[in-house]
Amino acid sequence: MATETGYDRDAVRAVLDRARSESRAALTAPEGKALAEAYGIPIPGEALATSADEAVSLAVELGLPVVAKIVSPDILHKTDAGGVEVGLSSAEEVKAAYQRIVDNARAYNPGADIQGVQVQQMVGGGQEVLIGATTDPTFGKVVVFGLGGILVEVLKDVAFRLAPVSAEEARAQIGDIKAAEVLKGVRGGEAVDTDRLADVITRLSDLVTDFPEISEADLNPVFASASGSVAADLRFVLDFEPPEPPARFTREEILASMNRIFKPRSIAIIGASNEQGKIGNSVIRNVVDGGYAGQVYPINPKADEVYGRAAYPTMADAPDGIDVAVFAIPAKFVAAALEEAGRKGVAGAILIPSGFAETGEQELQDEVLAVARRHGVRLLGPNIYGYYYTPEHLSATFCTPYDVAGGTALTSQSGGIGMAILGYSRSTSTGVSAIVGVGNKADIDEDDLLTFFGQDDNTNAIAMHLEDLKDGRAFVQAAREVVPKKPVVVLKAGRTSAGARAAGSHTGALAGDDKVYDDILRQAGVVRAPGLNELLEYGRALPVLPTPGGENVVIITGAGGSGVLLSDAVVDNGLSLMEIPPDLDESFRAFIPPFGAAGNPVDITGGEPPSTYEKTIRLGLEDPRVHALILGYWHTIVTPPMVFAELVADVVGQARAAGIDKPVVASLSGDTEVEAASAHLFAHGVVAYPYTTEKPVQVLGAKYRWARAAGLL
Amino acid sequence: MATETGYDRDAVRAVLDRARSESRAALTAPEGKALAEAYGIPIPGEALATSADEAVSLAVELGLPVVAKIVSPDILHKTDAGGVEVGLSSAEEVKAAYQRIVDNARAYNPGADIQGVQVQQMVGGGQEVLIGATTDPTFGKVVVFGLGGILVEVLKDVAFRLAPVSAEEARAQIGDIKAAEVLKGVRGGEAVDTDRLADVITRLSDLVTDFPEISEADLNPVFASASGSVAADLRFVLDFEPPEPPARFTREEILASMNRIFKPRSIAIIGASNEQGKIGNSVIRNVVDGGYAGQVYPINPKADEVYGRAAYPTMADAPDGIDVAVFAIPAKFVAAALEEAGRKGVAGAILIPSGFAETGEQELQDEVLAVARRHGVRLLGPNIYGYYYTPEHLSATFCTPYDVAGGTALTSQSGGIGMAILGYSRSTSTGVSAIVGVGNKADIDEDDLLTFFGQDDNTNAIAMHLEDLKDGRAFVQAAREVVPKKPVVVLKAGRTSAGARAAGSHTGALAGDDKVYDDILRQAGVVRAPGLNELLEYGRALPVLPTPGGENVVIITGAGGSGVLLSDAVVDNGLSLMEIPPDLDESFRAFIPPFGAAGNPVDITGGEPPSTYEKTIRLGLEDPRVHALILGYWHTIVTPPMVFAELVADVVGQARAAGIDKPVVASLSGDTEVEAASAHLFAHGVVAYPYTTEKPVQVLGAKYRWARAAGLL
Repeated sequence: MATETGYDRDAVRAVLDRARSESRAALTAPEGKALAEAYGIPIPGEALATSADEAVSLAVELGLPVVAKIVSPDILHKTDAGGVEVGLSSAEEVKAAYQRIVDNARAYNPGADIQGVQVQQMVGGGQEVLIGATTDPTFGKVVVFGLGGILVEVLKDVAFRLAPVSAEEARAQIGDIKAAEVLKGVRGGEAVDTDRLADVITRLSDLVTDFPEISEADLNPVFASASGSVAADLRFVLDFEPPEPPARFTREEILASMNRIFKPRSIAIIGASNEQGKIGNSVIRNVVDGGYAGQVYPINPKADEVYGRAAYPTMADAPDGIDVAVFAIPAKFVAAALEEAGRKGVAGAILIPSGFAETGEQELQDEVLAVARRHGVRLLGPNIYGYYYTPEHLSATFCTPYDVAGGTALTSQSGGIGMAILGYSRSTSTGVSAIVGVGNKADIDEDDLLTFFGQDDNTNAIAMHLEDLKDGRAFVQAAREVVPKKPVVVLKAGRTSAGARAAGSHTGALAGDDKVYDDILRQAGVVRAPGLNELLEYGRALPVLPTPGGENVVIITGAGGSGVLLSDAVVDNGLSLMEIPPDLDESFRAFIPPFGAAGNPVDITGGEPPSTYEKTIRLGLEDPRVHALILGYWHTIVTPPMVFAELVADVVGQARAAGIDKPVVASLSGDTEVEAASAHLFAHGVVAYPYTTEKPVQVLGAKYRWARAAGLL
Repeated sequence: MATETGYDRDAVRAVLDRARSESRAALTAPEGKALAEAYGIPIPGEALATSADEAVSLAVELGLPVVAKIVSPDILHKTDAGGVEVGLSSAEEVKAAYQRIVDNARAYNPGADIQGVQVQQMVGGGQEVLIGATTDPTFGKVVVFGLGGILVEVLKDVAFRLAPVSAEEARAQIGDIKAAEVLKGVRGGEAVDTDRLADVITRLSDLVTDFPEISEADLNPVFASASGSVAADLRFVLDFEPPEPPARFTREEILASMNRIFKPRSIAIIGASNEQGKIGNSVIRNVVDGGYAGQVYPINPKADEVYGRAAYPTMADAPDGIDVAVFAIPAKFVAAALEEAGRKGVAGAILIPSGFAETGEQELQDEVLAVARRHGVRLLGPNIYGYYYTPEHLSATFCTPYDVAGGTALTSQSGGIGMAILGYSRSTSTGVSAIVGVGNKADIDEDDLLTFFGQDDNTNAIAMHLEDLKDGRAFVQAAREVVPKKPVVVLKAGRTSAGARAAGSHTGALAGDDKVYDDILRQAGVVRAPGLNELLEYGRALPVLPTPGGENVVIITGAGGSGVLLSDAVVDNGLSLMEIPPDLDESFRAFIPPFGAAGNPVDITGGEPPSTYEKTIRLGLEDPRVHALILGYWHTIVTPPMVFAELVADVVGQARAAGIDKPVVASLSGDTEVEAASAHLFAHGVVAYPYTTEKPVQVLGAKYRWARAAGLL
């Protein structure tokens, strides 16, 4: 998808080679024009004049009015140098401007190599937009689009995409800015031809993809109108020594290692100890008590037996067939022990100890990684709590065992967040397939884990906390493969500038601009969680909710007040309240009191018996035009909380047995009994919360965001 | 504050009187100009030409270029009529334009009364802005400010204020738009003189305040620059029959009634019943079992005694000195019973029954209100669960008693939301002074309650759920009086268009544009809760947190990962991470491991003992440059959750005993023990939550928003 036929790569190559041979980091305007022409990016007619008379004759040929600009490899900011004049509409003006520009340039930089003055057809009209490309430290080549002027400068109303972009992606990018409506024509203006505008984005994205040494490109302004888009000014910055792309493993290589790591035949625990309070004691207890069925080999030179298992002085002494070695020894001993584990053929080394890059010991970490690479061992960590995989009853951690099996795999870069995952999961009985700490990510990172969980039948949703990505492209590629099959939720910490600064001091990771992350994660189909609580909540709830079959959401509520707040939440979360067709409206009305409100929300009013809830909910489930239900419950004596919960669980269960599998969420308002009622509903496949009208709708919104990204709607 | 000397009110009066006498709903351009001149709103030089020759001489006099516009009371949309020409820069152009404009106008509306063509000095340059005024159904006269062009039209980047605005308020309004930076000068442009721009807003706001019959005014565009602001076009719409302003009670009248309603000597319960399951049975049980110490008189013609209290057949038969009558009888009997209660001199009638305006029975509700007004009785409801006031152990409701006394007064328009308030409060042991249902608000509404709770020593925070305001101005006035003393939190439901539609079908209330509510509530110093859960949480937490003494917030965290997320939340909630001075940084560093990060967040790292938390937190409390602390806790064996909670409670308690009263909030990451630890902290004045980094910071942010609005920072 990177390139199209019709591009003149040789022409670009020639320009770039010359710039390289002259050690230049920028292109002149004629060079930029050559690149644009080679990739079919429309530009105004223009030519280079080397005398005032030549400028005049070119201006007449191109058509007045014209713009004149200094051409010098030594003058990058032409306006600052007094090197630009616009709106020259007569031969006299052109002639005078030529001389002024050259004089100004000489005054600005007496040593500048002045090659002449570019005379350019003056474009205008339509809408000024900006199209650019840059090289992001995390994602590599990205393209940016925005409207020109203050909208970009003050409101930062821009949209990013990973390059290269397809025509379809470029159109979505254009529609992504807040002021996109402007392009449809406002104040009587004509609509911009967005296909042709998207074509310019695509061509620029191909150019920077084909020639990675173009580190930045600005087409600014581009005049976009109904008759096409013309880039009036171009700027290219070059970097002939781009950073090495990160090393990558193939999908087969990743899965070969990950399958052994998550489903090990046997595990060695290096530093396993009988001494309570030691990490090596906690780890072996948790592995054994957690119910892991494979062999467990304590490695400890000072003990014959640890926690009832025969111990071995070194890895070399242990039996063969060990897939995983868990390290519970100080950082300084890790490299040597890893060397042994590597010789023994383990697939994964779980590096619990801290004292590596996070405390400034980058070299020690690099040394350990080098050992691992030499032996084909994948590293998890260092500086982690360990990992859990419930299908194998595996709790390889110094925390406590967890084995409420379920579909959610959770990962965290930070140990503190990992502990929150554990506590929250236990408190809410969240069904979990895995909890994994990635810590310093010396080796295994989120794209490895995505690749494994994406094909893991025990996992049907993935929720990740991360502060940075080592390789944004690999992550996007992995996410794109997984998203059509199961939701991927990401909490990206360090979103704001204050947050990013904290990330810097914590991990040394350079947090990229958050807008780049935001746009590109969305482009990859990832559901971004706004905070920790949402990460946990989405992780818990998304596997419980069936996938909706369409956009028609109906609210059925016993409390009108909840109906209003639920409607607010529907809009906030990008959902659509169904326009109820007259026949369905009539059917609802048949079940509710005359002063109740049909329409949407369906307000059954507060004093109704269980049967009213039951009939209306059943109707919503059975009508094929309705795709999702939001329930608002109001605690009354007539329909107590658990009666409501049981009837909803029954009705939904019956519908599901009959093959009707729609997402149902509920907000319960009432006295404290609504807490048990919500738990009952959750356990029966209805995502329910007490005391909040926002959370159930937010979770449904997350499910919809995923379903749309997965192409299921 | 409404008017300034120097306004020529007589001139405005004359113009409006003429318009009224001619039954016109709009002013002509010269009339609009007369209004602007009378109120000192700068406009371009202009004059009326009645012939092409006169137009030319005027143009020369005013200075070319000029704009020419048709003047006709019958042509409101001049552009549509071909009645505007701009940029006329020669006598010939002016002459030709005059004729075209008049011809176009005749073609557009052959019957139009054409008075001539207005010749206007052409203004431009600077920044195009819009200043307007309108009559909001909830708030009355409001003024709007925004940048011109697509920023207003597409991005709706405008700010509203209640008229009249002071110069200071107008400056704040200008700064309130997202693109405000544009006015400081971008792309090398000069900064706009915002004082002079604010002056135009103030003058327009005075004009519409002094002359309520001006229902709408547009100054659009206004050209704002460094040298002043000129309104290039004006439009005024008139309404000589504005709606009646709502009836209001004086503060003394409100308090006289409210004090008797919340602190009654005795209560009558009309419809009190021995029959379980009846509302009249629930109410008397709750009043009696709740511990109310005054006399309780059941009114029931069919019983001698109800729930152990002597019953009376009618109110007339009951003893004197009754302050409150609670109605637990069907709607149709309320008016007659209220007549009796009124004669008995009750101060308040608590109308629990439904079946009034919310079911379409507006007339019945109006009738009941008329009875109440005749007897000087204030009505609460109808269509409510009742009300609680814990200082009097009063639970006048059909729900269940509640008596965890504390400082928060909560009110709700919807019964369902009231039940959520009750359940949430009970579940979290929220200390409550009052819970009040306002239902249909036939009489008592939020401004009455604000007035009472504002001066109630038992209340130190007020949290209100509302779907509409009957009298937005009265609410703002009450809020402005209360906010300097205690926080007022509002959940305004029906925020979005879908939500507003639901509000319409629920209460028949016309929900105003949410942006108007949002800006004006903020102007009144109200803290708006984004959702139900936040309303409850702010209500619970704000009275617990001391008021900060300044903007310097410091994060102290054991989990670096939490530090990053807490920093994100700090920025999201408009707080400022303190730039730690070098000496304080050094002091922090003395307590933390060398690889920990000082700066802000202060990252003490995960493996630290209780003493490290203790020393750093004590330092943050004792250093007078620090104004608020956010703690991030990470569950470890070395510092278990309850150990952390107890030490923080101790350190904070000692500081408070020593007169250091700073807000401290905490996020606890860990296994389920962090839940009990959070509850312990909350009970000891530290606002703490498990499994979330957002909520503690959000609550601190709400406290800061209030403190700023109250003028305490």
